[in-house]
Amino acid sequence: MEFSSKILEQAVEAFAGLPGVGKKTALRHVLHLIKQGPKEMDAFMHAINQLKNNLKFCIKCHNISETEICTICSNSKRDSTTICLVQDFRDILAIESTGQYKGVYHVLGGLISPLDGIGPNELNINGLVEKVAAGGIKEIILALNATMEGETTSFFIFRKLAPFNVELSAIARGLAVGDELEYADEITLARSIANRVPFQTALKK
Amino acid sequence: MEFSSKILEQAVEAFAGLPGVGKKTALRHVLHLIKQGPKEMDAFMHAINQLKNNLKFCIKCHNISETEICTICSNSKRDSTTICLVQDFRDILAIESTGQYKGVYHVLGGLISPLDGIGPNELNINGLVEKVAAGGIKEIILALNATMEGETTSFFIFRKLAPFNVELSAIARGLAVGDELEYADEITLARSIANRVPFQTALKK
Repeated sequence: MEFSSKILEQAVEAFAGLPGVGKKTALRHVLHLIKQGPKEMDAFMHAINQLKNNLKFCIKCHNISETEICTICSNSKRDSTTICLVQDFRDILAIESTGQYKGVYHVLGGLISPLDGIGPNELNINGLVEKVAAGGIKEIILALNATMEGETTSFFIFRKLAPFNVELSAIARGLAVGDELEYADEITLARSIANRVPFQTALKK
Repeated sequence: MEFSSKILEQAVEAFAGLPGVGKKTALRHVLHLIKQGPKEMDAFMHAINQLKNNLKFCIKCHNISETEICTICSNSKRDSTTICLVQDFRDILAIESTGQYKGVYHVLGGLISPLDGIGPNELNINGLVEKVAAGGIKEIILALNATMEGETTSFFIFRKLAPFNVELSAIARGLAVGDELEYADEITLARSIANRVPFQTALKK
């Protein structure tokens, strides 16, 4: 695509840098902004400027936060002896929306993926080990994706934390609620049989 | 989705205002920007700021432009007696990329669509009528979408311009190059038969 205007081209390129946005979609976004007028553009710039200047990462759990310590870590009602290990901020949103978890989090910032050049040193693993070494942590819940990278990362962390006196658990893999047995893949089904739970436990929401 | 941070929420809402972007995609965009860091965010804001302050609409054809009169209207090599009427700027890009058209354009800014509350007065129709009334225009090519709204708008403009001594043409509707006859819909096929052209003309690229 060739644009008559350099300004337009730059704006399209900025939007095309977003994940999953190609040049055509980017142009659509830019034309939308132009149509909306200067007020909308100001609001857009203000929102990004706020992100840039006022958003921090919690020094304890690496969660996105407006303060040095995020609202979850600073909440005294939450159980700080249980840490749920997640890949990124979005997973915290997902778990928080269940309303089931009362502990705190630790955000890894990614998964080990040699193909993408992400090794253990690129992730917030050392911080987690230090937390555990400092004592006072009872349980670490590994809540990473059920993918190759997720399992590899879980295993790596499991080995790192094995020397310490801390309980390590992983979120259950099995049939999703609403799924039919017939259509489940063998690995999921095998795991859900191996990790079966007493029926009374299963009934609990 | 509930966010722990007001800043994050505002940014997600800004992105979710773009066409075809939902809250989940918006969050993905925002997290991408955060990951990229302040430099990327600055580039993003700069691009939008440029759009806001330095982008204008050509006073002659309403095309997006950096100057008062766009590069197409101010190009003396282009035939200013032929005007191609298009819905918006993207259509100019599409036509320009064919390299076949040497005239100038007129951007309507939309199509008549009573359901969306867009009537003739919301579009740049009067400007076109004035141009034609002023004289010196030989041909107007109606190049609007082959949709209900496009055809309605074309017909409205046809009636508006009928009293003037100007040739009115519409871009051809027919089988797209590469299409198979068997799968063409009846209306397209009927039109392509009714508007058949001498074979020598059809061969021309």
